[in-house]
Amino acid sequence: MVERLVVTTGRQGLFEFTDQIQALVKHSGLEQGLCTLCIQHTSASLIIQENADPSARVDLENWLNRLVPEHDPLYTHTMEGADDMPAHIKSMLTASSLSIPVIDQQLALGVWQGVYCWEHRHSSKQRTIIVHLGP
Amino acid sequence: MVERLVVTTGRQGLFEFTDQIQALVKHSGLEQGLCTLCIQHTSASLIIQENADPSARVDLENWLNRLVPEHDPLYTHTMEGADDMPAHIKSMLTASSLSIPVIDQQLALGVWQGVYCWEHRHSSKQRTIIVHLGP
Amino acid sequence: MVERLVVTTGRQGLFEFTDQIQALVKHSGLEQGLCTLCIQHTSASLIIQENADPSARVDLENWLNRLVPEHDPLYTHTMEGADDMPAHIKSMLTASSLSIPVIDQQLALGVWQGVYCWEHRHSSKQRTIIVHLGP
Repeated sequence: MVERLVVTTGRQGLFEFTDQIQALVKHSGLEQGLCTLCIQHTSASLIIQENADPSARVDLENWLNRLVPEHDPLYTHTMEGADDMPAHIKSMLTASSLSIPVIDQQLALGVWQGVYCWEHRHSSKQRTIIVHLGP
Repeated sequence: MVERLVVTTGRQGLFEFTDQIQALVKHSGLEQGLCTLCIQHTSASLIIQENADPSARVDLENWLNRLVPEHDPLYTHTMEGADDMPAHIKSMLTASSLSIPVIDQQLALGVWQGVYCWEHRHSSKQRTIIVHLGP
Repeated sequence: MVERLVVTTGRQGLFEFTDQIQALVKHSGLEQGLCTLCIQHTSASLIIQENADPSARVDLENWLNRLVPEHDPLYTHTMEGADDMPAHIKSMLTASSLSIPVIDQQLALGVWQGVYCWEHRHSSKQRTIIVHLGP
């Protein structure tokens, strides 16, 4: 089964959508199998991270922004805005696809794990994530 | 179904092979499912990136070369050449495997997305990518 | 088929567990298909790397430790110890899930490739990796 999820991002940062994926899994009736996500963009990416303490996410964002700053004189691809080339680099350093096994109709995530769409642009976007579910 | 693709790289850099994967998908007759790629090397890697403006790829390559330079005094693994240890690090920072859903016999990529083999060595290599197709 | 593997890490560093995965594949009787791994932690990660010369692994660890040092004044998430926030960042830069095709009951890895659990904390942990096997 292949489905399409849309995550609306409000700004640059991490947006959890574990519940949306879990709802798809539940709705599919899949008891055991594999859930695979693939994002259809190269200026946003996917990541599994801690969803307990929000300070961990703040630090992830600040650390990556420091490693990949805007206005780096190295960039030649600047036509689409100062945040575009950093967004491609951040997407390269994180994930475009992720796979999570399903056990008893539940994503087999650890206790503190959440699935996030990482928006690397400043403006709000509609990000499409294709979800494959198989036994 | 498991198939083997070979990408011949001419030099260090990004080599798109979306069409080769798409041809495999078409040939398999798979209507809907999942296409998974895994590269059999640790000095080359896989990445989904923008295939519209080539300047984005140039910047990705230059940025990663600056982050992971050759001749870093930290390296002790130097027997296989100055570009070998940087290649392993670059492979670590990008992807060894990628999964892309298939819809209507087409890879469900975004409009501007292409799939690339990233050669991290200077010399031309034959890089083997194992492709799994499943419903 | 979904199984659970536990890797006991003794310290910060790379721990190969290719043989444990290969044993699962053999035991399953799967002739051809896909083996997908997903780690249930965000302070440890997965990576496919060279398993021939140990110096390559030493350099990977030292390089990443230098890029993501402890006691960075940027960190606000410090309650769980000095090695915790660096661990989340290292997990972000490497992989939470990996897929490897299976051919003739064997993981289709390259000659020099091994699969590793990367422990980013200093203390020894029991790390759970969920393994999905499908045709």
